[in-house]
Amino acid sequence: MDITAENRAFDGRQIVATHASEACQCDMTFGLYLPPQAQDGPVPLIWYLSGLTCTHENAMTKAGAQAWCAEHGLAMVFPDTSPRGTAVADDAAYDLGQGAGFYIDATEAPWAPHFRMQSYIADELPGLLSANFPLDAARQSIMGHSMGGHGALTLAMKTPGRFSSVSAFSPICNPSDSDWGRKQFTAYLGADADWEAHDAARLMRQDGIDIPVLIDTGTDDQFGDLLRTEALAQAMAEKRVAHSLRMQKGYDHSYFFVASFIEEHIAFHADALWA
Amino acid sequence: MDITAENRAFDGRQIVATHASEACQCDMTFGLYLPPQAQDGPVPLIWYLSGLTCTHENAMTKAGAQAWCAEHGLAMVFPDTSPRGTAVADDAAYDLGQGAGFYIDATEAPWAPHFRMQSYIADELPGLLSANFPLDAARQSIMGHSMGGHGALTLAMKTPGRFSSVSAFSPICNPSDSDWGRKQFTAYLGADADWEAHDAARLMRQDGIDIPVLIDTGTDDQFGDLLRTEALAQAMAEKRVAHSLRMQKGYDHSYFFVASFIEEHIAFHADALWA
Repeated sequence: MDITAENRAFDGRQIVATHASEACQCDMTFGLYLPPQAQDGPVPLIWYLSGLTCTHENAMTKAGAQAWCAEHGLAMVFPDTSPRGTAVADDAAYDLGQGAGFYIDATEAPWAPHFRMQSYIADELPGLLSANFPLDAARQSIMGHSMGGHGALTLAMKTPGRFSSVSAFSPICNPSDSDWGRKQFTAYLGADADWEAHDAARLMRQDGIDIPVLIDTGTDDQFGDLLRTEALAQAMAEKRVAHSLRMQKGYDHSYFFVASFIEEHIAFHADALWA
Repeated sequence: MDITAENRAFDGRQIVATHASEACQCDMTFGLYLPPQAQDGPVPLIWYLSGLTCTHENAMTKAGAQAWCAEHGLAMVFPDTSPRGTAVADDAAYDLGQGAGFYIDATEAPWAPHFRMQSYIADELPGLLSANFPLDAARQSIMGHSMGGHGALTLAMKTPGRFSSVSAFSPICNPSDSDWGRKQFTAYLGADADWEAHDAARLMRQDGIDIPVLIDTGTDDQFGDLLRTEALAQAMAEKRVAHSLRMQKGYDHSYFFVASFIEEHIAFHADALWA
């Protein structure tokens, strides 16, 4: 693992690192913010999963998370959204291939060899982070934006006991029934695969989730129809899942929305992580 | 109008008053809390609509609202939930007749002569209150619990412009599709009436609402199936209504739940009323 950049931020360290990923069979880059408290020993970790077209960099530079991570003594990791490189399959569309990993393990050609983002995020990267940084592996939470919000919700449901809390900004909620999902699941998993096991609203309806859940979506989200928030809202209420779902008046899908409420999301995770 | 009781509370006045109601054609009793700020001039008003079996008294004595009304300089009115008296029709069931007015105007026998709670709450009582107490009629919000939560939501949607914000604890959400609703709508309105115009989830799906909305329901609500929270959750998300819906872990349908979060509800209304 090579640390390729490091900047002081809010008395802590904003790191960028690259490593050879076994899961993705290519070099992968991530951002990691370590708060000042990490100088004195392991700190809890929040996973921030980004949306379509993003790299590790977008949230790291635009979400404004570091100030609140420093205040609460929490680290935050910003993984990339897909495998990358000339040897890795891609598609001309912005919403398939590189930058659009959907946090699942592809089984179909040409994606299967590298597009293993679920294994990367759920299995490989946690070990790498624990081995190299002062992180408390017993205290982890997860959040994300858009495709990454869906990733956060599904990974939390797929790994019960792993995360203490989950939150999402503008999450894709029901990809099986949306153009943000059907196309990618067909490509990565095949038309006949068990999509249910990778769909937040369907997983929620089936299994629910037993950790605190916070979801924020803007009333003016330009992709509102694609998100299908209503399917997740219905499933959470039906399943009596403890949660808070907020539709924030006048906000859209951008990082300006994320930055406006990131303080509350980090405080929400801090409550769960320090409980 | 006779003031039948008055107690000092949090430096303000907790009043109970009785008056001959034109809408309900019987004597009606309500509670009114005036905060200390009302000594200096008109204050905004929050309507608190109660649930099945309640009178004006339950929330007044058990919700713990007065402390926060005093802090924010807000009055709160606690109307009764139905017409009352030996001349008024009733039913042996707890959920029909006296104590179960559902905040609608009955059209069917034997209910039509007295059960006109929509007219009473929306038209008659506001005038009486304004004429007799230092209230700022331009600043009103509405909230309620269970049947009263449904009343608050539907009255807010039926009177656009009247209320600055609406909140509900454990609201009945979709009475047309629940045993808490079908029975009463059949009795009061008739089986062939336009139930849609009196059903919170259906009104929401059709018209939405353009004031801040806050809803709290317990994950352990013993009447959860009857509330049909999922129908309202879906409708609000689908219609992109700015709102916050929270399912609070471990809470049930009781006033212990209401009292636990009333501070936040009153602060929520204060934000809208003082904006």
